[in-house]
Amino acid sequence: MTAEMSAQSDPDVLIRRATTDDVAGIVAMIADDQLGATRESADDLTPYLRAFEAIDADPNQVLVVADRAGELVGTLQLTIIPGLSRRGSSRGLVEAVRVAASARGSGLGTTLMDWAVQESRNRGCTLVQLTSDKARTDAHRFYTRLGFTNSHEGFKLKLS
Amino acid sequence: MTAEMSAQSDPDVLIRRATTDDVAGIVAMIADDQLGATRESADDLTPYLRAFEAIDADPNQVLVVADRAGELVGTLQLTIIPGLSRRGSSRGLVEAVRVAASARGSGLGTTLMDWAVQESRNRGCTLVQLTSDKARTDAHRFYTRLGFTNSHEGFKLKLS
Repeated sequence: MTAEMSAQSDPDVLIRRATTDDVAGIVAMIADDQLGATRESADDLTPYLRAFEAIDADPNQVLVVADRAGELVGTLQLTIIPGLSRRGSSRGLVEAVRVAASARGSGLGTTLMDWAVQESRNRGCTLVQLTSDKARTDAHRFYTRLGFTNSHEGFKLKLS
Repeated sequence: MTAEMSAQSDPDVLIRRATTDDVAGIVAMIADDQLGATRESADDLTPYLRAFEAIDADPNQVLVVADRAGELVGTLQLTIIPGLSRRGSSRGLVEAVRVAASARGSGLGTTLMDWAVQESRNRGCTLVQLTSDKARTDAHRFYTRLGFTNSHEGFKLKLS
């Protein structure tokens, strides 16, 4: 399966599907972030483990980690969405991209995104999309460098 | 199942799951749009019917139509995405919102979006999200009126 590994710039980093054992490490990366810090509570992993089961059971979800000799240094979730638009195209949606502080500046973000784009191609997608908080201006430059076009407004509605 | 129908302002309009018989009508609505016109080719429905099968078989996809006495007057696709972020929350992603020309100005767009928000709540989502092309300024005002926050930039990468 293509999600299991991919070639990349750092030969010590393996991009692989996440397992239950990775959940605590992924949550730590999601929480270690200016916006994520207030939204997570990693003291109790129960809701995260339940969510992981739903992700792992869905063939259109691929949650991956970047594994550097057993240390988790990055993560990303790719969702494949079939649709009628664009002649019945599927699209890949990227969420929850994180690179651990210890690996920033190493090109790992690019490696993760290259993986997501390639996996989307392998699954027949004609488009990859993502949204990025308007406050994350560094991320916007990063996605633009990767060839993404900032063509859309991203709207969110929180449900209480 | 909550997707089968919903209460709404116009009692003659039923929001219901799309069936194979609706595919041609949905594609016509998707194509009848300033941006959609160049992207669709409804002469051959084969790729659309194949995509419909993939959507219909996926329990996390709900493609609905607004049916006014047998006439299709609107459509929307909702994708439920499980995730680890926000304490293991699911989110609802709305794509391919269209209201037929014959039904514009009737509040049907609001009815469709209210349906999507309610269905997302019913499925335990804590967030509903969508992207809208930066050219669709009327749509931006519409989503803002519905309570959505334009908090994100939407990036797309077309795959050749």
